[in-house]
Amino acid sequence: MREAFHDQLDSIFSDLSEICQAVETAVRHATQALLNGDAEVAEQVIAADAKIDLNRERVEDTAFSLLSLQQPVAGDLRVVVSALRMVSELERMGDLSVHVAKIARLRVPEIAVPEEARPTIARMGEVAEDMVRRVAAVISDKDVDAAIALGRDDEEMDRLRRDSFAQLLGDSWDHGVEAAVDIALLGRYYERIADHAVSVANRVVFVVTGQMPAPSDA
Amino acid sequence: MREAFHDQLDSIFSDLSEICQAVETAVRHATQALLNGDAEVAEQVIAADAKIDLNRERVEDTAFSLLSLQQPVAGDLRVVVSALRMVSELERMGDLSVHVAKIARLRVPEIAVPEEARPTIARMGEVAEDMVRRVAAVISDKDVDAAIALGRDDEEMDRLRRDSFAQLLGDSWDHGVEAAVDIALLGRYYERIADHAVSVANRVVFVVTGQMPAPSDA
Repeated sequence: MREAFHDQLDSIFSDLSEICQAVETAVRHATQALLNGDAEVAEQVIAADAKIDLNRERVEDTAFSLLSLQQPVAGDLRVVVSALRMVSELERMGDLSVHVAKIARLRVPEIAVPEEARPTIARMGEVAEDMVRRVAAVISDKDVDAAIALGRDDEEMDRLRRDSFAQLLGDSWDHGVEAAVDIALLGRYYERIADHAVSVANRVVFVVTGQMPAPSDA
Repeated sequence: MREAFHDQLDSIFSDLSEICQAVETAVRHATQALLNGDAEVAEQVIAADAKIDLNRERVEDTAFSLLSLQQPVAGDLRVVVSALRMVSELERMGDLSVHVAKIARLRVPEIAVPEEARPTIARMGEVAEDMVRRVAAVISDKDVDAAIALGRDDEEMDRLRRDSFAQLLGDSWDHGVEAAVDIALLGRYYERIADHAVSVANRVVFVVTGQMPAPSDA
């Protein structure tokens, strides 16, 4: 019984890690679509999201069957419920990548991000992608130190978002309202991807140690 | 055993309904703070959020103890897991109200929303508040018809958001970038509150009927 439980749990965590890799691809492609004004890559991100949703359902089904058939208690129960939460957060990160891709698509053949704002937005995309890649590793290796380190990247994301606002609202901004609104929303989407990455990593810490790190504010 | 299960479940749903009422107050006050440029009311929303977080923890603890001690299976298990999801969504709606309140506070003594944009944003606030109020009733009465009707309000919210974008990006917009960025983000926050309201209502439908309505896209 215990062995069956741990086998099913391993299979859930391996699915979670795979979904996280799909999210990493979504974030990378969404940023590419955005910075290159590439409608085809944007469409790829939008189409690929259905697979993330499908894989979420698979994890949920496995987790429910595990809860029903194995009836875990205490720590084991919390691990399964954590997995259910992780998978909703990963799905949400996929949705946020779709939002980025849709802004990219909306502005084609133009590029949504003016040259002046490009370094900050490009860096947000990099930080988000890097965080998601590391979360995938955190999930598959159950690496608590790596999970805790993710919180520091989140600080860079917050700083980038402040820089981006300062730029939009500064006197030298001459790209108009549409670009400013796009960038404010893009900043929000990347920030939320980073928040979810930290939250998923914290849940891994909880799964391994039984203790949740202090929650980050969203 | 079964009676104890249903008593604890009733207590969870009564807590959920109470949290939902606190979220309704948060949405109403956040909109008031926003439209009146009232820093004091904004602070109230921000301070009151700690209580929502605390009540979320209480629901989670009760749900975990119920899962551990009663070991529900099949439908009962799904009801408890649904309650855990509902409470995270309600907490998130509280966070989004705090975001609205923070934009209000940031612009005091000015008012973030220019006169021209006021009708649309005020209506978004009304629709969101009304949806949250109805979700509280849906939770306490387990009213499936009322839950399904909520989806239609969500369509009004989507339309309001499109109207708001059309206004910001139209030629006659002369309130500058800062107000436009505020309004775009406010629209996003109200839209997410509405999305979560529909999602919580759908979970009530699932709890009562065992069937989830088609999910709304976020």
